Amino acid sequence: MNVAASHAYGTICALEYRYARLIDDDRLEEWPDLFVERGVYKVVPRENLGREPALPIFFCDSRAMMQDRIRSLREANIYNLHYSRHVVSNIEILSEHDGAFEVAACYTVYQTDLEGQTRLFSVGQYRDVIATGDGDFKFRQKIAVCDTFNIPNLLAIPL
Amino acid sequence: MNVAASHAYGTICALEYRYARLIDDDRLEEWPDLFVERGVYKVVPRENLGREPALPIFFCDSRAMMQDRIRSLREANIYNLHYSRHVVSNIEILSEHDGAFEVAACYTVYQTDLEGQTRLFSVGQYRDVIATGDGDFKFRQKIAVCDTFNIPNLLAIPL
Amino acid sequence: MNVAASHAYGTICALEYRYARLIDDDRLEEWPDLFVERGVYKVVPRENLGREPALPIFFCDSRAMMQDRIRSLREANIYNLHYSRHVVSNIEILSEHDGAFEVAACYTVYQTDLEGQTRLFSVGQYRDVIATGDGDFKFRQKIAVCDTFNIPNLLAIPL
Repeated sequence: MNVAASHAYGTICALEYRYARLIDDDRLEEWPDLFVERGVYKVVPRENLGREPALPIFFCDSRAMMQDRIRSLREANIYNLHYSRHVVSNIEILSEHDGAFEVAACYTVYQTDLEGQTRLFSVGQYRDVIATGDGDFKFRQKIAVCDTFNIPNLLAIPL
Repeated sequence: MNVAASHAYGTICALEYRYARLIDDDRLEEWPDLFVERGVYKVVPRENLGREPALPIFFCDSRAMMQDRIRSLREANIYNLHYSRHVVSNIEILSEHDGAFEVAACYTVYQTDLEGQTRLFSVGQYRDVIATGDGDFKFRQKIAVCDTFNIPNLLAIPL
Repeated sequence: MNVAASHAYGTICALEYRYARLIDDDRLEEWPDLFVERGVYKVVPRENLGREPALPIFFCDSRAMMQDRIRSLREANIYNLHYSRHVVSNIEILSEHDGAFEVAACYTVYQTDLEGQTRLFSVGQYRDVIATGDGDFKFRQKIAVCDTFNIPNLLAIPL
């Protein structure tokens, strides 16, 4: 890894960790800002990956759609019954094309209820494409491929 | 991230991982040495954070107090009924002031009993202030904000 | 951490994450290639570590032996009843001698069954020696020291 690659890697990790922290600190309104305007966010069960098309259980293809989603969440007021904790690890740059990075990572999401009981909520892999326009790193695509798919309230907050 | 920032980030990660390893290898007597002389270590349940004051369930405000704590543990001899494993991830530099870094990270602590059964013990966030006097990085403050708070034997070893 | 050390650290992390991903993507035939020809892979329960000799519950001392192991797995066809997810964290360089690095890391392995239920499978520590001949980083030794040892189907896939 040369100095430029190392610099990019550090910035990519920072973006992934910021993504996790904004969600866990309930700053959901800032979550769409981590994507480019026409960014894609999908949740796909791992067993669907081999199928064509790989049916997502959640899908947004613009920042506006993400903002809508967050507004619905706030109105439904379901989202705050748990604390969440997103652990991101094993961050790897798989390829680089035209200033965009294809990135893989593992995620582990925990939920803690109001009695302080923590349970493992979902484990899986992020498959991301990160654009670097003007040195500003943003998600062009984030796919959460979830190993765990029998999730009662999966769609409450982003994975 | 420039070269100096990248250097600092690497050193901060090394400190966090060393912290975890010393505890997990039962080298508890070396744990206070990772703090400055008047370092603060606190455990605060996440639900208390919004309160004023944010009541900690564990508190040390000097290395001497930490050493006392470890001596008590050794005498009580409770600490060794489990193996522990501290996973630190999502390490982020939030700010830098006068050569000290404000750092956030996720922690996940597992306990394994003498029959080899592992359970999730506590999940939460570290909120640290790391001082860099003489190039020697040490904790000026480590607050473990725990999502999980119904922990039977929480105070046995440091989080 | 200077520039050379930082470069080596980045390459070591990439190797560890690649190790995890090859296994989780069921690319087991490529797993032995991450080791040198006479590489050692062992699984040792943590409680055995203090004993002399530290009896492993799994042992390979060459790439050829690892390839045999994978072939047996494919024939037995047990390996594909679960998805696995290997999370590697807390990667630390403990020492460097003659171009080889002694590395410690935490691992957490999850298994998800065909109904999408995820459970914690094993938690422990990797104790690795990584050789750097010709700039090509490979495992000379990987020991998975497992905290969790009451594992029904431990030997199905590598930890």
